[in-house]
Amino acid sequence: MVRVSAIVVAAGSGTRFGTAKQFATLRGSRLVDIAVDAAHQSCDEVVVVLPADVEWDGAPVAASVRGGAERSDSVRAGLAAVAPDTEIVVVHDAARPLASSQVFDAVIGAVRDGADGAVPGVPVSDTIKRVDGDRVVETVDRASLVAVQTPQAFRADVLRRAHASGSDATDDAALVESVGGTVVVVPGEPANLKVTNERDLAIAESLLSEANRS
Amino acid sequence: MVRVSAIVVAAGSGTRFGTAKQFATLRGSRLVDIAVDAAHQSCDEVVVVLPADVEWDGAPVAASVRGGAERSDSVRAGLAAVAPDTEIVVVHDAARPLASSQVFDAVIGAVRDGADGAVPGVPVSDTIKRVDGDRVVETVDRASLVAVQTPQAFRADVLRRAHASGSDATDDAALVESVGGTVVVVPGEPANLKVTNERDLAIAESLLSEANRS
Repeated sequence: MVRVSAIVVAAGSGTRFGTAKQFATLRGSRLVDIAVDAAHQSCDEVVVVLPADVEWDGAPVAASVRGGAERSDSVRAGLAAVAPDTEIVVVHDAARPLASSQVFDAVIGAVRDGADGAVPGVPVSDTIKRVDGDRVVETVDRASLVAVQTPQAFRADVLRRAHASGSDATDDAALVESVGGTVVVVPGEPANLKVTNERDLAIAESLLSEANRS
Repeated sequence: MVRVSAIVVAAGSGTRFGTAKQFATLRGSRLVDIAVDAAHQSCDEVVVVLPADVEWDGAPVAASVRGGAERSDSVRAGLAAVAPDTEIVVVHDAARPLASSQVFDAVIGAVRDGADGAVPGVPVSDTIKRVDGDRVVETVDRASLVAVQTPQAFRADVLRRAHASGSDATDDAALVESVGGTVVVVPGEPANLKVTNERDLAIAESLLSEANRS
């Protein structure tokens, strides 16, 4: 029985690398393959969501589906392909290759413990200001702020209900919040960056080097 | 005549590197030396603020002074040592070795153009949530948020008045805002990270490598 399903979102079409970022290579592996592998370690099945013109050629997965125009469309496409009786759905961005199995287990565990959703969060280390044009209007109190990452875990029924609301929010947790779901934050990992350009890829390389040294 | 004075804040005592971070070495140069050098390129004089037990042994500077317990104490110590008739004071963290002379010039230029203060800001790329304990209470609209960096430039009289208010805010711009000063945001640099641990230092190395390649 499938209790935990992962949706690896790899449907973006940004091509700053000459290829979509999720197919860029880190240490000889494509980001999407790293993400699928990490999801397999903590979840019972993996569904990968791809751009319309890409065939899946990585490790065996439960399903590979085409994404949509918006990220929320892609998550909905993935949701339609997970096992119907799955209990927990984990949504993970293929562009976050450094998420550990510990963080997968932490978000899944928090949902098992009763939350409708769980997201990894790290403290906001920068000073944050709210601006109007180029004028600062407020220095935001960051003590109660977290920057959130993926993987994010949700009760399957709540995530389905949230996505059925038709919103195109890019953040699944925000959708779950919007239908009244309880979302908790578990400790995220500072190294779990989102790779969006060559600079981030170089940073990911150096983080991996450091991790291997320690 | 001194029109633009820089205060390089290097008074922290964090010792995660075995040395205070501002004395860690990047490409053969200490972070504090890189910061002083960058400040010299855009400012008429540089005052460096050091831990109590450190003597300045870098490039000639207008003054080196001892910092205080809080960052604001250190900035105040620097302010007391800048030329009395300086017009603009630039405050820069020694732990940001990748700030370019363009960003120094941009914040100085914005103050010359009439702002009381100017700070570099970059868009907030992460989803930000407000939490109460581990419970998410709000997904913050990040469209109007920026993460701010140093160098930050201020009209000298306004910064002095702001610091005379005795607040211990860690952010000079927030002090200036609190006394009614107008602070504007100029485009910051994604690479201008703050080095607080070995991981950040490795990232800075890889950013420099990338910059030299392009």
